[in-house]
Amino acid sequence: MDNKFSYRINNAKASAIREILKLMNDPEMISFGGGNPASESFPIAKLADISNKLMREEPLRVLEYGITEGDPKLKEELRKFMNRNFVNVHESDSMMITSGSQQIMDLLGRALINDGDVVISENPSFLGALNAFKVNGATIKGITMEDDGLNLAELEEALKTIKNVKLIYLIPNFQNPSGITTSLEKRKAILELAIKYDVLILEDNPYGEIRFANEHLPSIKSMDTTDHVVYAASLSKIVAPGMRIAAMVGSPELLLKCVVAKQSSDVHTNAWAQAMMAEFLRETDMDAHLKTICEIYREKANLMLDKMAETFAPDVKWTQIEGGMFIWVTLPKRLDMQDFVKAALKHKVAVVPGNAFLDDDTKPCNSFRMNFSKPTKEQIIQGVAILGALTKEQNDD
Amino acid sequence: MDNKFSYRINNAKASAIREILKLMNDPEMISFGGGNPASESFPIAKLADISNKLMREEPLRVLEYGITEGDPKLKEELRKFMNRNFVNVHESDSMMITSGSQQIMDLLGRALINDGDVVISENPSFLGALNAFKVNGATIKGITMEDDGLNLAELEEALKTIKNVKLIYLIPNFQNPSGITTSLEKRKAILELAIKYDVLILEDNPYGEIRFANEHLPSIKSMDTTDHVVYAASLSKIVAPGMRIAAMVGSPELLLKCVVAKQSSDVHTNAWAQAMMAEFLRETDMDAHLKTICEIYREKANLMLDKMAETFAPDVKWTQIEGGMFIWVTLPKRLDMQDFVKAALKHKVAVVPGNAFLDDDTKPCNSFRMNFSKPTKEQIIQGVAILGALTKEQNDD
Repeated sequence: MDNKFSYRINNAKASAIREILKLMNDPEMISFGGGNPASESFPIAKLADISNKLMREEPLRVLEYGITEGDPKLKEELRKFMNRNFVNVHESDSMMITSGSQQIMDLLGRALINDGDVVISENPSFLGALNAFKVNGATIKGITMEDDGLNLAELEEALKTIKNVKLIYLIPNFQNPSGITTSLEKRKAILELAIKYDVLILEDNPYGEIRFANEHLPSIKSMDTTDHVVYAASLSKIVAPGMRIAAMVGSPELLLKCVVAKQSSDVHTNAWAQAMMAEFLRETDMDAHLKTICEIYREKANLMLDKMAETFAPDVKWTQIEGGMFIWVTLPKRLDMQDFVKAALKHKVAVVPGNAFLDDDTKPCNSFRMNFSKPTKEQIIQGVAILGALTKEQNDD
Repeated sequence: MDNKFSYRINNAKASAIREILKLMNDPEMISFGGGNPASESFPIAKLADISNKLMREEPLRVLEYGITEGDPKLKEELRKFMNRNFVNVHESDSMMITSGSQQIMDLLGRALINDGDVVISENPSFLGALNAFKVNGATIKGITMEDDGLNLAELEEALKTIKNVKLIYLIPNFQNPSGITTSLEKRKAILELAIKYDVLILEDNPYGEIRFANEHLPSIKSMDTTDHVVYAASLSKIVAPGMRIAAMVGSPELLLKCVVAKQSSDVHTNAWAQAMMAEFLRETDMDAHLKTICEIYREKANLMLDKMAETFAPDVKWTQIEGGMFIWVTLPKRLDMQDFVKAALKHKVAVVPGNAFLDDDTKPCNSFRMNFSKPTKEQIIQGVAILGALTKEQNDD
């Protein structure tokens, strides 16, 4: 038949990263391209025990329909977990469990965006979020990233001149893809601007708990008393991503609309995964668990950074990181990024071209993203050596 | 802050059914209102065994990110399961695993619908589907249901006169809420009209395997060689709904757009649930399993129908059913349906007002929906007796 698709879906692209990931089925490929957490950090034995207990003792909790808002026990455990440290979930906030953080972007997009509305994001930013906003009709306005967060003058100029900005999308900790952490001063300044121009901030914090240097910074959510922040928490990176469990926290008025959106999206999130995460949080000393995870990440990050320092040409630059999963590498002008990435693929090392993360992927970009959490230490050593050698060539590969 | 929501979400309503279901937290309430399968049909012990094996032997299959299209092993098992009988999944078809059938409606809505496009549905029809289309910008055009499926003349008139029809939404087996099964003749005629006017059919078949009288009819999908049918299969009613596992089958061109839509919705469906269902289908004699389930449903349906025949006033009418989970009851003019439903709630019996299932819920409607799968036999006997007594009153309750 003659399919007539919606213009929104015709504007959307299949994820460039996911297309690259398909190349990685090649077992010889060393992949620094994915966004997967370190699988050796998954608490496998404990999850198996909890699952077995749940399936034997509370099967209907797992097998019956649940409510759209999410398992009340999981919400209670998440509230405690988030409040123990640096996120501030207010008494007056609502919470909803979602099928991964990706669904938070999608539901917010659906609840807020009319065709042609604008979402302001860091530039570069997480592709999956930008796509979710675009599929819901948004135009993305990217704001230049600096070493301590986005450029404030550019942000205010955008808020002042663009009338229909619906959302400011931020990843303040160990941003994807840049690895950058927004400073305390900039967090405060961004919140002030959001209040001044009455625009909602989506504070996406999937990596915040994976800090392996310096001290935690307060979340923007924790500074807000005016309902200008909706907060996205995820268990994908600190427990396991296949679970697809995240939580959004915000004002009851906003969350109510997102509940309506979720009713028509998937009714509710998988019941087993919610019960599993409730019991895991309840039974686990999370500080000890996170310490173990951070140690794994610290070792891998330091190994990659050390090997990069050893083998990369001195005119190649990369971001300083204090946590998370990514390093953002910028090539000198003598090297063309797209050619470099292709040459790396030929040598069986995958990285992601940086332009994929821009508000407009046709803009010039000489950076690429590297992930250190998924590859083994051997792969890190071997793969960085290959990339290092390529940085010393003159694009004549 | 001053929230400015999208007009699409402002047009959507929280599910009327889910609002009613909240009343049912009252432990004394006998609920014929839900759409829950019979929980005594869940294969609990087998699922617990499979889960334990999976978590011990293949933890990374469950805990790692998966691909958007779904677990290849589950797709293979589902293809075999669907083809063993009366669904015809072509070699050339694509399949995607989704987070329940609800997500199929949502992804199709996203892939097909521009604001103001029209979805034709049976009237009454499944509220969750209508909401998913509406949230994606569609207007619903309902076609009168007759005892053997929708009115063909009305359908053709709609296809002829409305220019931007994007989808015909059908539940051919034991329709929700009417319980009606579309005849073979009407299935053929509807497909012919869809081809003639080049409009896609969404054949939603969550209840088809729960047939406890007469023979299975061929799916519309099985008669189509022109890619005018996309088929929705669900495991919610025949295994367990908390899993949130369904599958959509259709042309590669259409499914590719739905994969892009799902990438930005939730990346992929819960990995444990997919692996669980793959192993369950592989290990289980599904014909024997379905026979057991159908026996449970047959007993409950017959009990409810018998008790209705015994206790309801003779001028109350209801649909003949051959399977599924619902009975559609129409009151005589002397009784007002909304008053009746309120009186029933007062007497601690919940049913769903029929107007909730109409394309326009302000249209007059003197019917309500009853579910027989979730309540116990004792509740069926007790609840029907209460409703029966109310049918004999003169609305002066």
